[in-house]
Amino acid sequence: MDLVWISIGASVLALLYALVSTKIILEQPKGTPKMNEVAAAIQEGANAFLKRQYKTVFIFWLAIVIVFGLLAYYLPSSFNWITPIAFTVGAGLSALAGYIGMQISVRANLRTAKAAEKGLQEALRISFIGGTVTGMSVVGLALLGFSVMYLLVNSPIELIGFGFGASLVSLFARVGGGIYTKGADVGADLVGKTELNLPEDDVRNPATIADNVGDNVGDCAGMAADLYESYVITVLASMLLATYAGLSSSALILPLLVGAVAIIASIIGTYFVKTNNKNRIWSALNKSILVSSLLSAIGFLILTGLLGELQYFPPLIAGILVAIVIAYITGHYTNKNTAAVREIAIASKSGAGTNIIYGIANGMRATAFPVITIVAAVIFSYFVYGDGAFGIALASMSMLSLTGIIVSVDSYGPITDNAGGIAEMSGMSAKIRATVTDPLDAVGNTTKAVTKGFAIGAAALAALSLFVAFANEAQITTLSILNPFVITGLFIGAMIPYVFSAITMRAVGSAAAKIVEEVRRQFHSIKGLMQGKAKPDYARAVDITTQAAIRSLVAPALLGILSPIFVGFFLGVQGLGGMLAGVIISGLVLALMMTTGGAGWDNAKKYVEEGHFGGKGSDTHKAAVVGDTVGDPFKDTAGPGLNPLIKVINMVSLLIAPLLIGLSAPLMLHLSVL
Amino acid sequence: MDLVWISIGASVLALLYALVSTKIILEQPKGTPKMNEVAAAIQEGANAFLKRQYKTVFIFWLAIVIVFGLLAYYLPSSFNWITPIAFTVGAGLSALAGYIGMQISVRANLRTAKAAEKGLQEALRISFIGGTVTGMSVVGLALLGFSVMYLLVNSPIELIGFGFGASLVSLFARVGGGIYTKGADVGADLVGKTELNLPEDDVRNPATIADNVGDNVGDCAGMAADLYESYVITVLASMLLATYAGLSSSALILPLLVGAVAIIASIIGTYFVKTNNKNRIWSALNKSILVSSLLSAIGFLILTGLLGELQYFPPLIAGILVAIVIAYITGHYTNKNTAAVREIAIASKSGAGTNIIYGIANGMRATAFPVITIVAAVIFSYFVYGDGAFGIALASMSMLSLTGIIVSVDSYGPITDNAGGIAEMSGMSAKIRATVTDPLDAVGNTTKAVTKGFAIGAAALAALSLFVAFANEAQITTLSILNPFVITGLFIGAMIPYVFSAITMRAVGSAAAKIVEEVRRQFHSIKGLMQGKAKPDYARAVDITTQAAIRSLVAPALLGILSPIFVGFFLGVQGLGGMLAGVIISGLVLALMMTTGGAGWDNAKKYVEEGHFGGKGSDTHKAAVVGDTVGDPFKDTAGPGLNPLIKVINMVSLLIAPLLIGLSAPLMLHLSVL
Repeated sequence: MDLVWISIGASVLALLYALVSTKIILEQPKGTPKMNEVAAAIQEGANAFLKRQYKTVFIFWLAIVIVFGLLAYYLPSSFNWITPIAFTVGAGLSALAGYIGMQISVRANLRTAKAAEKGLQEALRISFIGGTVTGMSVVGLALLGFSVMYLLVNSPIELIGFGFGASLVSLFARVGGGIYTKGADVGADLVGKTELNLPEDDVRNPATIADNVGDNVGDCAGMAADLYESYVITVLASMLLATYAGLSSSALILPLLVGAVAIIASIIGTYFVKTNNKNRIWSALNKSILVSSLLSAIGFLILTGLLGELQYFPPLIAGILVAIVIAYITGHYTNKNTAAVREIAIASKSGAGTNIIYGIANGMRATAFPVITIVAAVIFSYFVYGDGAFGIALASMSMLSLTGIIVSVDSYGPITDNAGGIAEMSGMSAKIRATVTDPLDAVGNTTKAVTKGFAIGAAALAALSLFVAFANEAQITTLSILNPFVITGLFIGAMIPYVFSAITMRAVGSAAAKIVEEVRRQFHSIKGLMQGKAKPDYARAVDITTQAAIRSLVAPALLGILSPIFVGFFLGVQGLGGMLAGVIISGLVLALMMTTGGAGWDNAKKYVEEGHFGGKGSDTHKAAVVGDTVGDPFKDTAGPGLNPLIKVINMVSLLIAPLLIGLSAPLMLHLSVL
Repeated sequence: MDLVWISIGASVLALLYALVSTKIILEQPKGTPKMNEVAAAIQEGANAFLKRQYKTVFIFWLAIVIVFGLLAYYLPSSFNWITPIAFTVGAGLSALAGYIGMQISVRANLRTAKAAEKGLQEALRISFIGGTVTGMSVVGLALLGFSVMYLLVNSPIELIGFGFGASLVSLFARVGGGIYTKGADVGADLVGKTELNLPEDDVRNPATIADNVGDNVGDCAGMAADLYESYVITVLASMLLATYAGLSSSALILPLLVGAVAIIASIIGTYFVKTNNKNRIWSALNKSILVSSLLSAIGFLILTGLLGELQYFPPLIAGILVAIVIAYITGHYTNKNTAAVREIAIASKSGAGTNIIYGIANGMRATAFPVITIVAAVIFSYFVYGDGAFGIALASMSMLSLTGIIVSVDSYGPITDNAGGIAEMSGMSAKIRATVTDPLDAVGNTTKAVTKGFAIGAAALAALSLFVAFANEAQITTLSILNPFVITGLFIGAMIPYVFSAITMRAVGSAAAKIVEEVRRQFHSIKGLMQGKAKPDYARAVDITTQAAIRSLVAPALLGILSPIFVGFFLGVQGLGGMLAGVIISGLVLALMMTTGGAGWDNAKKYVEEGHFGGKGSDTHKAAVVGDTVGDPFKDTAGPGLNPLIKVINMVSLLIAPLLIGLSAPLMLHLSVL
């Protein structure tokens, strides 16, 4: 038990590192009043959105706490008062992680824009320091929260509520942020770039502030909450499996220590991000990830050696290898200079139709190798070494232990994206944009795709562990596909990610349509706007996007919460187990398809914009823009949203499992025999 | 055993009906020499394609027969000489079904064009008689072939090879025909409509004959082989399950008798297709399906009553209800005047990007109710009445027993599509096209979508039965998802439909690109072509498409044949079982998404073309055309191709199951412990 203090110490260290980094950011020069004005508008919009989003979360939180209270009161054998408390802490820390990610990002953007005057190196330094604040806060809060709670209740089973809280808030953050950011982005592009021929981030476009707000609430706050959740869930699942298997106390605590080791390795890794060459940005960032991975691997060897549990070293290495292989594969299908992306650009020559056909096909075939990698890791971790299912959990834990450095590398992207927006809108020299913020932003697309591949791969492994935990909680020893309830559960589970994606993509489409209308209205009614003589009403566009995104939050959240309850009570534990497996496998391939496909389209467009096949303004470019527009909700809303969805469904199932054991046979059977 | 003669009699009746219908078609007037010239070109192209396709099939057939021969020689305990013979008959009849479908279609098109001069009623009559030839040949050949083979070998287990032959040829026919038809269609549209502003089927477009050939080799030959295969597989699976369960001899023969009853009901149903009102075409066709369903239901009641097996009546009714419900749901998401399709048309107003986003979302959400319907049917058939898994098989058998009427209704569509092409190219009055062939063709889109929904729903149920049969052959009594081989098999299985779709969609894209190049080349090098003074080189475009389609056949076929062999030998029977389930569930939702989504886009374009939101030539229309282009490979290549893919994988697994039992543990485990 004393060993928990090590993970508490490491997580406090991560938070201190984030604090120091924050101080560095705040001390940077803030530029001209015009720049500050733009940044303030973005900040205000982001805060307004987060406030509204957290209000909705609060209502859900209240309803769920009441349900947990009632369950603890009436079913004391299955539920106790720890669940609502753990749920609250888990949800609260998730909200906090998102809040911190966003607050630092809306401040670092301005400082990065200013630093860009000094050149690429300084801009990269400032934006990356901003990124490390988010990265270290995410791992720090996740590990600290879980370790302290574990110290208090001394049983991972009591902390299932903690994981549920993390999952639920992260679903809201990912989906809400995702709809906001892509609604604003697609809307701004459709009317700005396509209809009015305005450049990106043009000061006359009323949706441009909303677009920049979106980077913060989606790519920063949403992503932070998402990875916080993945981390928490993985720690929880690993410790649950160790408990069920009755492993040694050092095996039980191992996931927390793995997290602690990787935090230190990640902090060291952050010092390797340095370059002044715009063609070497990705390799600089990549180096920090590789250094952190290598140091973590060495740390894991020492750790398992000291604990006398060397048999757990191989699955830990497998997890790191999966992370690296998936990052490599994702790059292969999404990097701007790969054959895969060039092919989409070539297809754009014959029009938007072929651009879409090749882009979707690219996303579809990109599912093969990540799946095979995960399959190999599962078989290896389960059989060759490790302790059965606990080996799989350890592999996912070691993957996610790299969250600190991965999120740091990821978060610098939206900061530079915003910095570019501020530079454009405040009338800074065009050269700054071309030579500093645009190259940084382009690499940001790749890091985002890599992070998403990493997140969904890790989520699949973590969900597998949760799935085994569910079987334990539901007292299932076999879950045979030959059982009709299991196979029908599988069918339903495979369908849910499609329905979820349909809901979220329609939400983006509808938010974008509202933005288009509003922008058209403003250009129509505000005289002199097109000539730059009058100012657009940014706040109104921000407000419309906020409302659209918040309103669209409810349906996907209810789908995640209610579907396992319905299936559980109608098809029983066997049906629910089938559904969980169905959601995991179908969700994994669909999410891989959407995130990789979306990034491929984005970079195919960028490839054309570099001057290939006619460059900007050509018909080929117009076709490539269509793919990019479709890719936006694929890669930033529906695809990454599947990640928390899978886990919310798993967590709800884990929570209701004790209630289902009591049911001698599924309800449906009773109904239909009537 | 004597009862088999009933199914033989009914299938001979179906074939006689097809023969009489053929005679009626051939006696119809054939129009002007110009019309005959166009029709001859289409016929020649279709024959050339089929010849080349069957050559490729022949090579695969030969390789497989050799493998079966070797297996029968060296492993006489698991294989015998019946397998290669049954395989040959199954494959041969599949090829014959496709051949008949195509031969009648390339003759009925011309007669329908001529009949169109007399009005809608006569054109509908001729094209529908053409459709019934295909419909009745498909069921006749399937039921006759299986019944006679069963009479000879007296054991469904010996006829697994028959099913494999049917599946393999149908995979070739669906995929080859699908790539051909959509490569030509997309290519012709991209360069003809979009670049050169030529109308559909314009005589100057060099790809226009290829486009019309495509209707015949894809929508007629491909679809006929596909449903022949579904029918055969379902009969096989039902009889296998009855055998494993040791049911009575009348239960064993029931699937054949169900087929016989429905043939008679379907023949009566064909007499109800009569209308002269262009707004009532669908209801006339629909009436024939409903009459056939009702008569079948009454027939099933009498049949099960006479056999003294009334307990099998409820699952038979369930199957018919599933067919009707799925047809209704598909219509809801694809019919031109529904809210769902109008929404896609509205989204086209803001551009191609939103058209695609809404169209994909439409396909995704359209998966929900068909899946729920299938789940309900499975639970009902398994538990409430019927005999466990045999109940599910009976439900799928009763669904597929309607194949005769469904294919008849479906096949009239491509015939009228071709008739429209002939009318256009031979310079017939534009009024004929507007008032007769276009309205018939538009309804053809809906019947195609309904047939595909029906086919994939039936395929899922049939595949479930095959899956149970596999478990029996592999001597598996449990297939627990908690087993790491099963869950990894599920992952791989869920990914395969994505990879298959990627391959086939890229093949369409690449065939289309070659057509675009060729058409551009001809307009560039043939002087006076644009002015209508010179003739294009149709044959060359036909030849290019044929080559592209045939070359693309091999990869998807190998994926279907080799993936179960690899997984079986590396992950063992448990892993293979997981993979089968994964392919079925993931394939079902993906196929539903693609076929429904594609039909939605197609009709959204047609809705705009009716004059909504600016009508033809407007920006909205251009955006809607993009969706239609993407929808083409979705609904006519990748989506329906998943159907035979699922079954080929199942059939290969069934065949290799006896070999896997001998392996004490999966090969992978041996390898990795080395």
